Amino acid sequence: MMTLDEKFKILEADNAPGQEIRQVMTDLSTIMRGGKMNGIPVDFSHGDVDAFPPPPGSDKIWNDGFRKGAQQAYTEYRGAFEIRERLAERIGKFTGRAISADNELIITPGTQGALFMALATSVTEGTKVAVIEPDYFANRKLVRFFGGEVVPIPLNYQKPSPTNSIDLDRLEDALKKGTKVLIFSTPNNPTGLVYSHTTIHHIGTLTAKYGVTVIVDQLYSRMLYSGENYTHFCSCKVQPENTITIMGPSKTESLSGFRLGVAFGTPKLIDRMERLQAIVSLRASGYNQAVLETWFQEPKGWLEKRISEHEAIRDRLLKIFNEAHLKTSIPQAGSYLFPTLPPLGIDLNTFVRLLRYQAKVTVTPGTEFAPSFSNHIRLNFSQDHKAAIDAAKRIVKIAEIYSV
Amino acid sequence: MMTLDEKFKILEADNAPGQEIRQVMTDLSTIMRGGKMNGIPVDFSHGDVDAFPPPPGSDKIWNDGFRKGAQQAYTEYRGAFEIRERLAERIGKFTGRAISADNELIITPGTQGALFMALATSVTEGTKVAVIEPDYFANRKLVRFFGGEVVPIPLNYQKPSPTNSIDLDRLEDALKKGTKVLIFSTPNNPTGLVYSHTTIHHIGTLTAKYGVTVIVDQLYSRMLYSGENYTHFCSCKVQPENTITIMGPSKTESLSGFRLGVAFGTPKLIDRMERLQAIVSLRASGYNQAVLETWFQEPKGWLEKRISEHEAIRDRLLKIFNEAHLKTSIPQAGSYLFPTLPPLGIDLNTFVRLLRYQAKVTVTPGTEFAPSFSNHIRLNFSQDHKAAIDAAKRIVKIAEIYSV
Repeated sequence: MMTLDEKFKILEADNAPGQEIRQVMTDLSTIMRGGKMNGIPVDFSHGDVDAFPPPPGSDKIWNDGFRKGAQQAYTEYRGAFEIRERLAERIGKFTGRAISADNELIITPGTQGALFMALATSVTEGTKVAVIEPDYFANRKLVRFFGGEVVPIPLNYQKPSPTNSIDLDRLEDALKKGTKVLIFSTPNNPTGLVYSHTTIHHIGTLTAKYGVTVIVDQLYSRMLYSGENYTHFCSCKVQPENTITIMGPSKTESLSGFRLGVAFGTPKLIDRMERLQAIVSLRASGYNQAVLETWFQEPKGWLEKRISEHEAIRDRLLKIFNEAHLKTSIPQAGSYLFPTLPPLGIDLNTFVRLLRYQAKVTVTPGTEFAPSFSNHIRLNFSQDHKAAIDAAKRIVKIAEIYSV
Repeated sequence: MMTLDEKFKILEADNAPGQEIRQVMTDLSTIMRGGKMNGIPVDFSHGDVDAFPPPPGSDKIWNDGFRKGAQQAYTEYRGAFEIRERLAERIGKFTGRAISADNELIITPGTQGALFMALATSVTEGTKVAVIEPDYFANRKLVRFFGGEVVPIPLNYQKPSPTNSIDLDRLEDALKKGTKVLIFSTPNNPTGLVYSHTTIHHIGTLTAKYGVTVIVDQLYSRMLYSGENYTHFCSCKVQPENTITIMGPSKTESLSGFRLGVAFGTPKLIDRMERLQAIVSLRASGYNQAVLETWFQEPKGWLEKRISEHEAIRDRLLKIFNEAHLKTSIPQAGSYLFPTLPPLGIDLNTFVRLLRYQAKVTVTPGTEFAPSFSNHIRLNFSQDHKAAIDAAKRIVKIAEIYSV
């Protein structure tokens, strides 16, 4: 068993997205080669809700909720029933699987809140959890916080379809050896890979066979680029008894400032999540819950426009990075890019700090997504189009300066 | 070590305040004596923000925050620096102890969020934690969720001052026997007792001597009634190295719908809280954080008026309960009453459900605050004055009907 010191060492968050402001930069002037670069600062660690604002009217709906007063301020811990009811219907339509508002869905403070509680339902001291590499940086931390053991499963995201999948043999081997939980994101964070129909169904069959709990993070599933298809794990014919799917309006819909997420799945697990939510945060902010009414019912054409604008940025950045030999896979969905860096004369964290200090560009080190990705950086390209392009060019220059 | 089933059994939340809506009531018609009562429904399980609304302009400040966009949506995990800076100054003045905005304060999603993370910093498998009985219902659940062991310390709240204190001998005995953490609320939830200057300083000396971590929940410390004095634990001359104080604007200020709280104290513990917050919920809703600017700077006279209105309700309810021999201690602060019921022919949970079904009055069973309080109910009397009085009279009637 870990001591508290060990436990909180694992949770070290200095390089986590958004925490860069707490880093000390004074030592960099002696390492820096060449001068500081001009340009509009770009923070690729998260999307820019000024460049891509929330759907029109979200503040109006918030104000309507506030004026409702007590009724909106205090809801069941799992969220206001009427909101859950309408959400369940819309999300059920989206995923192709009916959801009971009464016992299969919970509203959470962001998808981060949903992930925390979802893992808590199923991971305790010694539980073996299959975690994809690379995948969302908090997954490994969460597993270890609850005392679980991370069983890494590689994602061959750089291979051409259909081999660009997780290593299914490794997964089956892990399940055979007692792995009890699988967590993965599709689209994958940080690569933007969408799990194929075949892979999803294969995972469904395997996890059903071995009685595994599956937690699927579908945060970016609405921002699907031209020609891509999406398969919802919860719609699989064969699937395990215990599953939780997580979604939220923080990314595509830019509602991150409201801290709203949802989880839906097996009633027993949703019930556990609510019991835990009662001692973790009681409920998602009552007034903010009202804003979920905008979700999945944005104005006609709004989502299509948002996707095409992101696709245009994606294509430009891919061109810039690939021409400069910073090999980058094509994200099929979402707004993450995961470029490979050339061999550098400095370590990754120093590179990332220099990028911020010298070129006004904030990115997230690849090591946040699995320990081995020490030559990768992650960008959230949901940014002002022109500023993102200029910043990407500065990344290329900085990589040139410090390459060996 | 507990299994997940055992762990979530402890977190059972069906009788927790606000969850009554999920209870099945169909079996009550066969138990009920007499008919249903008329009257305006009153939910004493939490305060009514319609009767006591948030300070004027809190929605305007929220809207200003929303319009600030990205800058307000994404903050450090511990909260926006500028807001922390101003809060630290105001709270420092209130408590009489300077607080560093940089490393001694964190903004959390409600005080529930603060409590969860505060206990997580110091409680792990086998940690002995002194928990006051009665005290806030989540404390015991939190300790056990983190694998800790609850060491109960009685609060002699019904005795006259100065013996109406926790049992300090029992506390010292517990500390001698390896208790490592003490958590308590002052004003106490559910009784409204304010820990005296002598008791607070005694606790400071004892916990310093034994090197104990102290977590103090001061959620209601601003709503102090005429003639009462308040002592802040953090202002003690002698105090242990590790302390966390928790406050929030959810009660007196009715900002509960925003889910905002703060914790301040030892930098190492605040740092741990932030690391944990990064995987629990990232941050308190960015736009909502803006509303903290109203806190501790309400319009002149606002707080005094709010207190005197609550004091008037308190006095009327005390009179009603004590005249009917539902013995109730006088709360010195906050808006909780903790009346004693007469011996009943039905169990407490059935009484509470009948109260809701037959008399349209929702209260929280005393057993939520410690297992032995099976003849108590808790009321949050932050309600419409007239409706609260009528509802209190209905409680008295229902207690008469079912008493033996």
